[in-house]
Amino acid sequence: MALRTLSAKNAAALDQDLMSAGAFSIDQLMELAGLSVSQAVFKLQPFNKGRRILVACGPGNNGGDGLVAARHLHHYGYQPTIYYPKQSKNELYQRLRKQLEDLKVPFTNDFPSALTQTDHIVDAIFGFSFSGEVREPFPSVIEALRDTKIPVLAVDAPSSWNIEDGPPSEGPGKGFMPEALISLTAPKPLVNWFKGRHFLGGRFLSEEMARKYELDVPEYEGLDQVVEVSVGGKL
Amino acid sequence: MALRTLSAKNAAALDQDLMSAGAFSIDQLMELAGLSVSQAVFKLQPFNKGRRILVACGPGNNGGDGLVAARHLHHYGYQPTIYYPKQSKNELYQRLRKQLEDLKVPFTNDFPSALTQTDHIVDAIFGFSFSGEVREPFPSVIEALRDTKIPVLAVDAPSSWNIEDGPPSEGPGKGFMPEALISLTAPKPLVNWFKGRHFLGGRFLSEEMARKYELDVPEYEGLDQVVEVSVGGKL
Repeated sequence: MALRTLSAKNAAALDQDLMSAGAFSIDQLMELAGLSVSQAVFKLQPFNKGRRILVACGPGNNGGDGLVAARHLHHYGYQPTIYYPKQSKNELYQRLRKQLEDLKVPFTNDFPSALTQTDHIVDAIFGFSFSGEVREPFPSVIEALRDTKIPVLAVDAPSSWNIEDGPPSEGPGKGFMPEALISLTAPKPLVNWFKGRHFLGGRFLSEEMARKYELDVPEYEGLDQVVEVSVGGKL
Repeated sequence: MALRTLSAKNAAALDQDLMSAGAFSIDQLMELAGLSVSQAVFKLQPFNKGRRILVACGPGNNGGDGLVAARHLHHYGYQPTIYYPKQSKNELYQRLRKQLEDLKVPFTNDFPSALTQTDHIVDAIFGFSFSGEVREPFPSVIEALRDTKIPVLAVDAPSSWNIEDGPPSEGPGKGFMPEALISLTAPKPLVNWFKGRHFLGGRFLSEEMARKYELDVPEYEGLDQVVEVSVGGKL
C-alpha cells in the first residue's frame, strides 16, 4: 500500500494547524523535525563508513531543520560542517546557529571545497514551500549535489524538485536523485518519482490530525523518531 | 569516579545561561528534557511488564517536563494518565496540556484511584527549585508515592527531597526512596543519598558550558538522549 501524500498547499495548512489548533511552537516542531533528520543520518551513515557530514541549509524552515539535525549529529559523535549562505534574520534561526557555534561546529562558504571533505551530505536547502525558482547561490550547489558520488539525504524534498510534479525537466536539478529522502510529517507527491531509500519522520502527529489530512501514521519502532518506508513511499 | 553535582543555585544559573548566552528557548529545552524522561521510562518499564504510566506533574518546569514525557510515551505505545492538580496559567504549559488532550491522554484529579490503575509512576512534581515546603494537594500524593509498591521514576529530584541535603527528616517525604531517578543536565547533590537506578539526560550541553559549571559529560550511546549511571551518580 502506498502511503498517502500531502500536497504543498496542505503541508502548509497542516503546519499552520499544528501551531494554532495543535498548540505546538515552531521551536518544538523544528526540534522534533531536526531530531528525525539526525536519526535518518545515523541509520544511513554508520560511523565505520565515515563521520563527516556536510549540512547544506537554505534560508527557510528546511534550513532550520538542517541546523537542528547538525546539532544532534555533533552530540552523536559526527563532525558536521554547515553551509548556510543565506542566513535568515529570524530570531529562531539565529539561535539555532548560535547553538552550533557554541559547539564549535564549523560554518563554510566554500561548498566545492567542503564537498571534497565529507562522507555524507544533508540537503536541507528547499522544502515543501519551494516554488520553482532556484535563486543564487544555490544553482551551482544543486548541480554539485546532482553530480557528486557522495551520498545525499534530502530533507522533505530533493532541492529544486517540484513538490507536486517531482524532478524538474530543466535547470540545475535536472537529473538530481539523492540516495535518500526523509519526508517530514507525511510524504509529498514528489515521492512518486523518488527512487532511493525513504524515511518518514514526525512522531508527534495526533490521529485526529492524521484523519483530517487523510494521512497514514506508520508504525515506528522503540524510541525511533524516524521509520524507513520502502521506495515510492510504500509501507 | 562520582559525577560532579550541580547545586540548586548553579542549576538555576545554568538554566538561565542556556537560555541567554546558550540561545536555547524554554520550549526546546523542555522538549529535550521530556524526551529524556520518556526514554528513561522506556528503559525501566518494558511493555511486557505493563504499559500504564501515571505522570504526576507539579506546577512548574518539572511538571512541564512530565507533560512532554507523557506525550512521547503515548507515541511509543504507552497509556499515560496525567495528574496535574495545580495547572499553570503559563502559555507553554497550557500548550503542552493541549497537545496531550489532542491525543486523548486522560487527566485525573483522583490520585489514589489512579494509583490503583498504573504499572509505573513518573514523579514530576518538584524539581531543583523546590524550596522546602510541600503545599496542598501534594503532601498526601508524596505519602502515597512513598508507600506504594509501584515503581517510581523521579525527575531531577524525588519530590520533597532537599536539593542539597537529600531526604527530609520529617514530613510526607520522610522515607521516600523512588526506584529510579533521572537527573536533567547534571546530578544535584541529593544523589549522594539516592539508592536506586540513576539516569542522566541532557544531551545538548556544550563542552564549554560543562567546563564553566564543572560538570561531567557522560558518554551516551547511539541515539540515546539518556544514559544510565551507577548508584550515587558514579560513572
